[in-house]
Amino acid sequence: MQTYERIADLRNALKTARVEGRSVGFVPTMGALHEGHLSLIRRARAENDLVVISIFVNPTQFNDIDDYEKYPRHVARDIEMAAGAGADVAFTPAMDEIYSEGFDTVVVVRGLSDILEGASRPGHFQGVATVVAKLFNIVQPDHAYFGEKDYQQLQVIRRMARDLDISTEIVSCPIVREPDGLAMSSRNVRLSPEQRKAATVLNRALGYTQEIADTGVHDAHILSGWLARTIEVEPLAKLDYAVIVDRETLLEADRIDNSPIALVAATFGDVRLIDNRIITPAPGLERRG
Amino acid sequence: MQTYERIADLRNALKTARVEGRSVGFVPTMGALHEGHLSLIRRARAENDLVVISIFVNPTQFNDIDDYEKYPRHVARDIEMAAGAGADVAFTPAMDEIYSEGFDTVVVVRGLSDILEGASRPGHFQGVATVVAKLFNIVQPDHAYFGEKDYQQLQVIRRMARDLDISTEIVSCPIVREPDGLAMSSRNVRLSPEQRKAATVLNRALGYTQEIADTGVHDAHILSGWLARTIEVEPLAKLDYAVIVDRETLLEADRIDNSPIALVAATFGDVRLIDNRIITPAPGLERRG
Repeated sequence: MQTYERIADLRNALKTARVEGRSVGFVPTMGALHEGHLSLIRRARAENDLVVISIFVNPTQFNDIDDYEKYPRHVARDIEMAAGAGADVAFTPAMDEIYSEGFDTVVVVRGLSDILEGASRPGHFQGVATVVAKLFNIVQPDHAYFGEKDYQQLQVIRRMARDLDISTEIVSCPIVREPDGLAMSSRNVRLSPEQRKAATVLNRALGYTQEIADTGVHDAHILSGWLARTIEVEPLAKLDYAVIVDRETLLEADRIDNSPIALVAATFGDVRLIDNRIITPAPGLERRG
Repeated sequence: MQTYERIADLRNALKTARVEGRSVGFVPTMGALHEGHLSLIRRARAENDLVVISIFVNPTQFNDIDDYEKYPRHVARDIEMAAGAGADVAFTPAMDEIYSEGFDTVVVVRGLSDILEGASRPGHFQGVATVVAKLFNIVQPDHAYFGEKDYQQLQVIRRMARDLDISTEIVSCPIVREPDGLAMSSRNVRLSPEQRKAATVLNRALGYTQEIADTGVHDAHILSGWLARTIEVEPLAKLDYAVIVDRETLLEADRIDNSPIALVAATFGDVRLIDNRIITPAPGLERRG
């Protein structure tokens, strides 16, 4: 595993690979790696000649300075885990390597950035889009890998890549879950044992919503109402939103006929978690209410 | 000269050049080519193996729909002129090739975009930065060439390229002038004979400002006052601004010791023109007022 802290050094290393015609897969991370990240790295390993990960806790995507400061940091362990999953190169820049003096440019995906997570976390997606645009320009990967847990982030990045004619192909990978169903997140370690247990309500509520859909209820508003109430029943969960939206536009769906996605966000103590699940209509029951 | 209207076709053509290790020089234009553009193409020809120009009248950088509609369009002639100056490839996309359905991403260089031209033309530099970012991603040039007449644009693009880690080197080329000193501009053809004559006041006023500086006047505010008044004396000129600013930050300079740049903008009829000149201190007279 080769590790670079400077953009120029990383570029130099990747130049050789590119001249040799080797494909480059890229997994941008904020470190604190878990099985979800490792699944991205393994996928990148399977599909590319060279696998690059970045580890950079990006301050501009945190709307809450407390969340930024508490974000787990274990770079040495991360590098070891990434190498074990098949990464070849780690890019671990310091702050001033990414945001040098006079930095004053932002990439904004309008519309998609202002709703749901964007409404709860002002500036979050602007920070994400800008740093991902930078990292794409630095690494110039053939493929870049993102987890489906951060579904809105994935859609913002897809939109940005399409709109700015970025030639990198965006690849998404399924959510990886703990044995009890909790979606893997770097923030899970900050949950108390009680909160950790309570947090499983998100995945349970999503599964329950699909079960109701399976009985033939295809009205998205009825289903999202059930989804919200199921989470609200958990005393340690403070629900932010529970919606069923079109998978591309993220605008609220009226019905589930086109397999929209249910997105939920809730806070447990001071830890905000998100989860999601595509809701599919019950086969043969398309005409019921 | 090869001409491409589709991004995919252009990319395919450039891929071959890149695999062969040929350097790519890029001159983005809105067409209506004049000697200024040709000087950029000749410079690109001298410094690169392959020279690409783009011709696209970008609607998002016009704050005035009338100016957009009246912008001169002569694509066939432009292609001929560009070929004569040494361009190998022309990219002439239609509107929906650049702005496809659902387009919703912008690149914003804050600060620099809001002053001077940005104050007079809201949204202009956001439109410029976004389309240039897209064109850079499409062409992936080693060098890109911009004229110094649009000095603020040049600085916005330099800042964007630096901030977003775009690997293209930005090369600037001196203003090309008509025999009577008027800076070449695609909008000059829209001037009446009287306006055309009056418009020479911009370059004359800039030269006069340097002459005053040569006498030992190094106070930038006194100099920009003379600059403004010289333009205002011309009855057909409606002055927008006349300032002397730092060459990088574009913030107003107090003195000319560091060779700041004088920027002017004025309207003749309905045609808005800009010009500029670096103002240098008089050698050996640094200590006079």
